[in-house]
Amino acid sequence: MGWIDLTAIALMFAATPLAGQESKPEPVTPASVVAASTASEWVPIDPADLLVMDLAPDTKGAEREVIVQLIPPPFSQGWVGNVRTLARAHWWDGTSVYRVVDNWVAQWGDGEDDPKKAKPLPAGIAKAPPANFSAPLPCKVYLFQKKVLKEECDPSVTPIEGIDPYVLKGQTGFAAGWPVAFALEGDGNRIWPTHCYGTVGVARDIDNAGTGAELYAVIGQAPRQLDRNIAIVGRVIEGIEYLATLPRGRGEAGVYADAALRVPIVSVRLGSELPAAGQPRFEYLATDSKSFADYVHLKANRNDRFYKVPAGGIDVCNVQVPIRRVAAQ
Amino acid sequence: MGWIDLTAIALMFAATPLAGQESKPEPVTPASVVAASTASEWVPIDPADLLVMDLAPDTKGAEREVIVQLIPPPFSQGWVGNVRTLARAHWWDGTSVYRVVDNWVAQWGDGEDDPKKAKPLPAGIAKAPPANFSAPLPCKVYLFQKKVLKEECDPSVTPIEGIDPYVLKGQTGFAAGWPVAFALEGDGNRIWPTHCYGTVGVARDIDNAGTGAELYAVIGQAPRQLDRNIAIVGRVIEGIEYLATLPRGRGEAGVYADAALRVPIVSVRLGSELPAAGQPRFEYLATDSKSFADYVHLKANRNDRFYKVPAGGIDVCNVQVPIRRVAAQ
Repeated sequence: MGWIDLTAIALMFAATPLAGQESKPEPVTPASVVAASTASEWVPIDPADLLVMDLAPDTKGAEREVIVQLIPPPFSQGWVGNVRTLARAHWWDGTSVYRVVDNWVAQWGDGEDDPKKAKPLPAGIAKAPPANFSAPLPCKVYLFQKKVLKEECDPSVTPIEGIDPYVLKGQTGFAAGWPVAFALEGDGNRIWPTHCYGTVGVARDIDNAGTGAELYAVIGQAPRQLDRNIAIVGRVIEGIEYLATLPRGRGEAGVYADAALRVPIVSVRLGSELPAAGQPRFEYLATDSKSFADYVHLKANRNDRFYKVPAGGIDVCNVQVPIRRVAAQ
Repeated sequence: MGWIDLTAIALMFAATPLAGQESKPEPVTPASVVAASTASEWVPIDPADLLVMDLAPDTKGAEREVIVQLIPPPFSQGWVGNVRTLARAHWWDGTSVYRVVDNWVAQWGDGEDDPKKAKPLPAGIAKAPPANFSAPLPCKVYLFQKKVLKEECDPSVTPIEGIDPYVLKGQTGFAAGWPVAFALEGDGNRIWPTHCYGTVGVARDIDNAGTGAELYAVIGQAPRQLDRNIAIVGRVIEGIEYLATLPRGRGEAGVYADAALRVPIVSVRLGSELPAAGQPRFEYLATDSKSFADYVHLKANRNDRFYKVPAGGIDVCNVQVPIRRVAAQ
């Protein structure tokens, strides 16, 4: 059986050392760099910034828990505030995943078109958060393609090695653990999060930006055309497969034509509202750390034996920020 | 309920015309351009270039048919020849999908590591096709980022509007209906197919390029780092969801730890070997047509009302070449 990823091969070799052969040094890989990172390079994620969504068990009775990390300031905080209010009100309990489109999104919430039948929103929901899909970048740097012009930049913004087709006068990279794009726009720099696999965004209509009650997760090729057109409120950090493997909808726009196919949402809770022992604990590899820089560089320039032709570049959505579970405190 | 794609909105409007309002002209969209294309812009796909893979029915008894289009010359023809031989020998009948990794691949074939237990390959299989992952481009054009230098180029190669992070001295685009990259390499131009969602490639080990007996389909973000490192033999043009929705493997490297979870392959046939009335008939929008150029341009510069900030560029894997079923002849 052939493999197509060095991670797999490394596992196979680890399982079957070649006795009698002189061992060569293991090549440095993205995975080995992450494994060798120091504890101080990891940043804990506050359980208050996590949503725990329990779908109804699958047909075999297996649990399906999806964990979403909410995006930090300066992004989308009007919608993120609504999402927190909705979670505290247990508003999503009893709603469903009602739309699944292959190579596009899985979408959940009330799913009711008729305003008269729609589930009422809890008190405190901003009906129309200001449609700010980007934020000022406190920094005078900008990067155009591979040419870097730096001035007093925020050092926590790390540009990626690679040009980006969606950012003509700017660049992509990472800030506080999140994939971002930033560009010179008019009189200053702006920064915004990018739509990647697992990104959670706010479904909207043409003339409004949505409240955050109807959400979707990306389950295919990064739909970067949505950047700055839709509010990103988070990303799935565990359990995306429970959304990605749902049957695709056959109704209009990928909605389940038969309401019986909707996947019930048992509950959505903020991680901080769960009993202390059950609170989800995660940490991410700081995106301004040495290990992260090495990880991205190796992702863009694969030098292990499987890869004969390293690309020399990478796109921001093909770099998964390392995130791992840690023991409950 | 909010939506996140104009296709959906267009459908909603079509269903509920606003009586009494003066109708505005519908905006031109990628979908409307395809709908308005002429019959002469579409190219039939020979059933001899299709693989029809029938998986065992799902738990509800529903059929799962996956259709793969084989890649045309000059790409990967050593492997494509093997794939045709394997299909004619019905070699995949009774094998399985044995490895599924979220945001990565679904892989099928014999899935046996031990050469002594492996299913014998049929006569006529080239054990080691020459590892040519790219082809000469009969053309002296090359494009570097957005700067186009043209000389006597093959007019069937259409560059995309957008730079590409994986092709430093070249560009991406489309040739004969397929997403490709091309670049100046040493003494001449080379062209190669790109790994996108749905791409079918040949699983391989470190020291060989595989035979084509073990195949995978991409079910996540385009793994462009595999370009020129693995042979691409085709793409799924129908039924990718039957691979993308399979449960993810929990064993080493995403293999199903329990062999009972493997998804049986009932049969794989070349489309031309099926009874005439049952042969699959598809056509694709010619990638050197006016409508395709308009389609790509609009994908890169969304001007419909849903999109407030058009990106101004796109990546080659975010342009799905329009492919449609046609009536049997």
